[in-house]
Parts: sequence; structure tokens; C-alpha cells
Amino acid sequence: MAKAGSKLWQRPASEILRAGPGTLVAELDRNGTPGFSGAKSDGTALLEERGAVLSGLQEMLYANGRSGDSRSVLLVLQGMDTAGKGGMVRHVIGHVDPQGVDHAAFGVPTPEEKRHHFLWRISKRLPRGGQIGVFDRSHYEDVLVVRVHGLVPTPVWQGRYEEINQFERTLVAEGTTLVKVAMFVSLEEQKKRLAERLDRPDKYWKYNPSDVDERALWPAYQEAYQAMLDRTSTEYAPWYVVPCDRKWYSRLAVTELLITALEGLDLSWPPADFDIEHEKGRLADA
Amino acid sequence: MAKAGSKLWQRPASEILRAGPGTLVAELDRNGTPGFSGAKSDGTALLEERGAVLSGLQEMLYANGRSGDSRSVLLVLQGMDTAGKGGMVRHVIGHVDPQGVDHAAFGVPTPEEKRHHFLWRISKRLPRGGQIGVFDRSHYEDVLVVRVHGLVPTPVWQGRYEEINQFERTLVAEGTTLVKVAMFVSLEEQKKRLAERLDRPDKYWKYNPSDVDERALWPAYQEAYQAMLDRTSTEYAPWYVVPCDRKWYSRLAVTELLITALEGLDLSWPPADFDIEHEKGRLADA
Repeated sequence: MAKAGSKLWQRPASEILRAGPGTLVAELDRNGTPGFSGAKSDGTALLEERGAVLSGLQEMLYANGRSGDSRSVLLVLQGMDTAGKGGMVRHVIGHVDPQGVDHAAFGVPTPEEKRHHFLWRISKRLPRGGQIGVFDRSHYEDVLVVRVHGLVPTPVWQGRYEEINQFERTLVAEGTTLVKVAMFVSLEEQKKRLAERLDRPDKYWKYNPSDVDERALWPAYQEAYQAMLDRTSTEYAPWYVVPCDRKWYSRLAVTELLITALEGLDLSWPPADFDIEHEKGRLADA
Repeated sequence: MAKAGSKLWQRPASEILRAGPGTLVAELDRNGTPGFSGAKSDGTALLEERGAVLSGLQEMLYANGRSGDSRSVLLVLQGMDTAGKGGMVRHVIGHVDPQGVDHAAFGVPTPEEKRHHFLWRISKRLPRGGQIGVFDRSHYEDVLVVRVHGLVPTPVWQGRYEEINQFERTLVAEGTTLVKVAMFVSLEEQKKRLAERLDRPDKYWKYNPSDVDERALWPAYQEAYQAMLDRTSTEYAPWYVVPCDRKWYSRLAVTELLITALEGLDLSWPPADFDIEHEKGRLADA
């Protein structure tokens, strides 16, 4: 948990944002800052401070990976268009050493990906030991957009919840800590963000006409997100529900979630696997 | 070239560091700051400023990539142990959005890699359009460590210089701008950096006893680097020779090299591929 910021966080993000039986997507205040009592200026200042803490922990994870530790962290970002997945990568993951980050974005499956099981492309991008993997969208697309648009028969996507749980159980058993973040933007805030993309020539490339079409399917998406939380938030790989109308809050919250995950690994610097004094002597003569 | 820092750079890094017929590895001042007249404090301040410029250019490259542009940039880092390749990634590439970076480190080839042509593992990690690829070591290992240790017969590594030139010629023709950086640390500075790794428990993981053994082969390595520069610094993919005893200088210099490469692409924001007014109307109703 935040140390310097502990006065501003009433409760740790990892507790207050964790999805549980009472989590209702329909009732979520997407403009809220759950657990955090500070203002935007407090949040952005704290983000820099905590980003440095994250960076230090990440270096230790990386060092352990280089020394043979197979543990890794995987940040899964799911959210509607404009929820701020890209900004999350830039402003949160941007704090850590690029050498220790393995970033993968999952778009519409390629023809080759479509010929494989939906977890095939995911498996290929899992982080190695010592890395922080980042998934911008993920295997959850296969129970979200696929469900909403009926891209496969109902029994197929219905079966995927349990497939995902089994898949993640194995991942966790093999040493990956999953940090699954469901990012929720409001319909109004999404409209503002899409409008900005249409107003600024440096943002046109982020705009896709289909984003507007998807807005008509908003209720179906909310239902799909609810089912995702209900059926795949497990003890070993819980979902965190992050309101995203305030970007500074969502970025700070995810920074805290990653710090908690890394602290949970109880890392220390890898010990020397050589005789230090002997090496000092050899180096002096070399 | 640096704008705010143009008073400090007498000549652009891309000119003064470019390897040419007169480049002699044996005579290089590895503690030098060629082309730059400022002190360390000027250099570190300028690095932040120019890092932001690099970040802006990278975003535009990324935007174009998302819009179908196949062009990319590939930073190749080669240097002896402790030259600062890792720090280069952290402190230079760390300025840009992790989404637009594809980082690959090439260590001792795996058994599978050994069964393939030496360019096989390289080809698999080439950056997609819109990305900045970063190679921490590269295909040049196959004319450096492989040559020094005689890991393949002489005619085999001798033939690789031309193979590499052909390979890179194709890469460039397909839209990749290569920024090849040969990083040179002095024997004395290397000793200091290795000693630090033996003195600090948070650095043990970076130390490898073989680093000391390699010091005995220093002259052979310098010869191999000279041959590499002589035979693979081409018009389409020149080498840049960067003195690395002063980390602040090497990081600033490589930042400038990347900025020059990106500016050379003459990028602009991708135009809208949709009817802006029509979309504004649709969004208002959605």
C-alpha cells in the first residue's frame, strides 16, 4: 500500500476495487475515486512518487528473472473504447524499464488466429520469468465482443468462462501473478472523448467509425462485463473494477494494484552465485 | 538536430559519430564527448528536453503505423559488457510510449536457434510498421563473440559481413530505418563498473564471472569491432561510434540519433479516413 500516500488512500486499491458478489456494473460510479480522498493534484503528484516505487520493484523482479526465477506479473486491461487503456500503458507502465515489459495488444483476430483455439494467440504472448506482461485487450474479448456480436454459437462462448478459469489457474500455479483490470468509462464521458478525437487532427488516427456503432450496443456490453466479473473473478485471479472517467485516478489505482502484486512476491536482490572475494581478486588482475 | 541544445552541439551527433574510412577503434577517446561542448549538467538537462521531442516523434510514427504505414525504426545496440546497453534502453527508450517499443535481447543462442541460420532469430524480432525496435545485442554477435572465440570456421564468419549487408539492404528497402550504435567503453572504466557490481548486493545479478575472462580477449574484440565497422557501415545502414565512459553523453547522443532518424521519415499526423462532419453527426445522436 501507499506509504507517503497512505493518508490519501482510506483503503488499499487492491481491497476496495476487488470485484465481489456485490459488484454491479450497472451501479458503478464511473466518475468516482473509490478509496481515495485526495484531489486530482494529489493524485498526479502521488502517481509520480508511486511510479518510482513501481520502477524499483520491477527492477528487482527483472533481476530475479535474470537469475532464473520464473515468476512474472501479467496486467490485463479490458475496457470499452476510450476507457484509457493506451494511456494506462503510457503513464503507468511508462514508469518502468522497457527491458522488463512485454506488451501485447489483441485486436480483431487474424485469419491464422481464427483457425486456432482462442487461447492460442494469448499463450504465445505470456510473459517470461522476470517480466511484466501487459495485455491491451486479452482472451476476455472472446466473452465480450464475441458474445455481444454473437460471433460464435452461444454454447461456445458460454463454455469459455470455465476454460479461462482453468487456463488462469495453471498460469498462476506456474508463477504468474495476474492483475486483471476492468476499466469502466461512462457513456457521457465516452462521447466527450470520441468528440475530441474528431476535433483534433492529431487524434483522428484513434477514431474508428465503428466506435459509434458500438455505443448502440452499450447495454449488451454492460451485461457481458457483468457476466465476466461474476464468472471469472476468482480467488487466484480476481478482477479489479476501476472507474475511468478520471484518468488520474484510474492510473494511480492501477499503479497501486501493480505495486501490491509485486510486493506480494516478497522479492529481494538475488544473491551472488559466485565467490565475491575471489572475483574481486580476478578483476584486480584483469 | 537539437534546437534548444543547438548551441551545445557544435555538430550533429549523426554527422560526427558516423563511422567512416578514418574511424579507428584503437584511437577512439572513450571518455570523449564529440560534438558536444556542454558539461554533464547541460547534457542531463538536455536529455530530458530531447527525450520529450523523441516521445512526440515516436507517437507520430506509432499513429502512422496504426494507419497502415509499414515504416519502422530499429535501434541496434552493440558494445562490450558494461558499455551501458541496459541503461540506454532504460534512460533513452524509457522516454517513449511502451506500446510503440519492441525490445529484444539476444543472448547466447538457444539450442533451437543454433539449428537455424544466424539471421533466423533476428528476423523473428524485426519491428512492425510504426514501432521502434530495440536490439540489445544483435546479429552482430555473429561476427564479434563468434569470431573472437572461433565458434564457427573462419570462412563462415567471414561470409557473414556480406550476408548482413544484404539482409540490412532488404530491411531498409522495406521501410526500416536502422540506427546502429557501437558503444565503446574503456578498459579502465569497464573495470570500475565491474568492481561496482561486486561491491553492491543490488548489482550482483548483473555480474558474470565470464566478464572478467573476456577482458583478456580485449584486443581481439577491438579488432573484431574494427572489422565490423569497416565492413558493415554502409550508406543505407551506417554505424555510429559512441564513446560510453560518460553515460550522460552516450544517452544524449543516442537520443539525438533517434530524433534524426525519425525526423528523416518526415512524418505528419495521418489524415482522417472517414467523413469528419458525418461522424460528428452520428456521434451526437449516439
